[in-house]
Amino acid sequence: MAVVIDIDDPADPRVDGFRDLSAADRRPDRPGGKGLVLAEGVVVVQRMLSSRFRPFALLGVARRYDQLAADLAGVEVPYYRASAEVMAEIVGFHLNRGVLAAAERPAELDPAHLLAGARTVAILEGVNDHENIGSIFRNAAGLGADAVLFGDRCADPLYRRAVRVSMGHVLRVPFATLPTWPDSLDLVRDNGFRIIALTPNPGAVTLASALTGDRVALLLGAEGPGLTEAAMRATDIRARIPMSAGTDSLNVATAAAMAFYERVRTA
Amino acid sequence: MAVVIDIDDPADPRVDGFRDLSAADRRPDRPGGKGLVLAEGVVVVQRMLSSRFRPFALLGVARRYDQLAADLAGVEVPYYRASAEVMAEIVGFHLNRGVLAAAERPAELDPAHLLAGARTVAILEGVNDHENIGSIFRNAAGLGADAVLFGDRCADPLYRRAVRVSMGHVLRVPFATLPTWPDSLDLVRDNGFRIIALTPNPGAVTLASALTGDRVALLLGAEGPGLTEAAMRATDIRARIPMSAGTDSLNVATAAAMAFYERVRTA
Repeated sequence: MAVVIDIDDPADPRVDGFRDLSAADRRPDRPGGKGLVLAEGVVVVQRMLSSRFRPFALLGVARRYDQLAADLAGVEVPYYRASAEVMAEIVGFHLNRGVLAAAERPAELDPAHLLAGARTVAILEGVNDHENIGSIFRNAAGLGADAVLFGDRCADPLYRRAVRVSMGHVLRVPFATLPTWPDSLDLVRDNGFRIIALTPNPGAVTLASALTGDRVALLLGAEGPGLTEAAMRATDIRARIPMSAGTDSLNVATAAAMAFYERVRTA
Repeated sequence: MAVVIDIDDPADPRVDGFRDLSAADRRPDRPGGKGLVLAEGVVVVQRMLSSRFRPFALLGVARRYDQLAADLAGVEVPYYRASAEVMAEIVGFHLNRGVLAAAERPAELDPAHLLAGARTVAILEGVNDHENIGSIFRNAAGLGADAVLFGDRCADPLYRRAVRVSMGHVLRVPFATLPTWPDSLDLVRDNGFRIIALTPNPGAVTLASALTGDRVALLLGAEGPGLTEAAMRATDIRARIPMSAGTDSLNVATAAAMAFYERVRTA
């Protein structure tokens, strides 16, 4: 059962975890310099509560507590209740969503463990934009992809903006980091996955003809540079998103969505 | 042939069309209160130059002129050349992309004319977010959709942010406004289009089974509220994007991309 604690003083040290949110992702005082994991709004907080991320505190207005009461019934966590004005002073701006939950970063998951239970995974290389990372998780959740694996040079999926854009699905869709890149792709292949690089290259086979087989790993690079040659060489096949002449490649999260859709369509 | 005119004084009235860009979309002095159409960066300026939007002036640094020289060879337009510092004073901030082109808004296109030559069109209702509008045009261009039609309550596709997010494709993919909503859907149907509403409703048929036929019009609503009942009733069939349980609907531009992809896949 959550314990409600009223906060009247914005300087109260008990709400330090929620202070100055616009800078909350840079925390040199914490492991790796990374911020806490922050869920914003009722829906995302609900997703955190049903995830492996255990919030150590919530901060919100009274009305949001009422909306979350059922979700919080079985959870031992303080709910710091504040007025919208006090909350704005703590977080540094007016937060429309009215409620936040903060969790420590848990231990990273084991990629081998994730692969063992998965049918469709996305593997990212050089996707260094938090919004794209968030959108990929949202699309993975919506279209039934099982996990996301990080190769080289990707943005932090637990950055506040990534959590928000993912609508909290970064807390639900499991992810892990491949230890060596691109050599760890062998681990993926050893688990029975066909590794498919997505490319706008018109010489590649179509997405529909490539995405066959029981276990599929979709390798995606950043817009613009795309995948490195080293990663390309480590794949089993290159598949193209059908693109019109004279256009750019699609956004990486949109390309991922089409590949996930193709898996659902042919499941 | 573009004429190069050096601008040393940020207050020069000849560059008034480029002034204070962060507020450039609100122009009560202009028809409908709408801003000029602004292209930012070499690629988007090139797309404007090969579109129906005729720029009346460009403003940029010397290096960008050199990059655009071939594109500007046959165009009668002034290129106001300025240093990065003078340009920043004119537009109100440092503009990384280094070049801008400004065009008046041309006359709107006739929806009947667009429909006559199209095979796949998107029709939007209540899509009031400029970023989503821009992404829909980018996806339409990339995946070969022929036109976008606006129903009720949509954001301005020529807003600066929409142009930028579309990567200039809003200047290339033709669009028009349906005069009465949803009654004008009859015009679409009379042109031989099957009108398909996209919905997350699990009772609808699959996207793959719905998107058959020579001419397809995809009706898309905003995330959250979705399509109105009046619009739904005016459609021929409701098709669902396959969604996992416990997730939100997909972003509207992502849903559009999957429908466009389905058309390309089965073309």
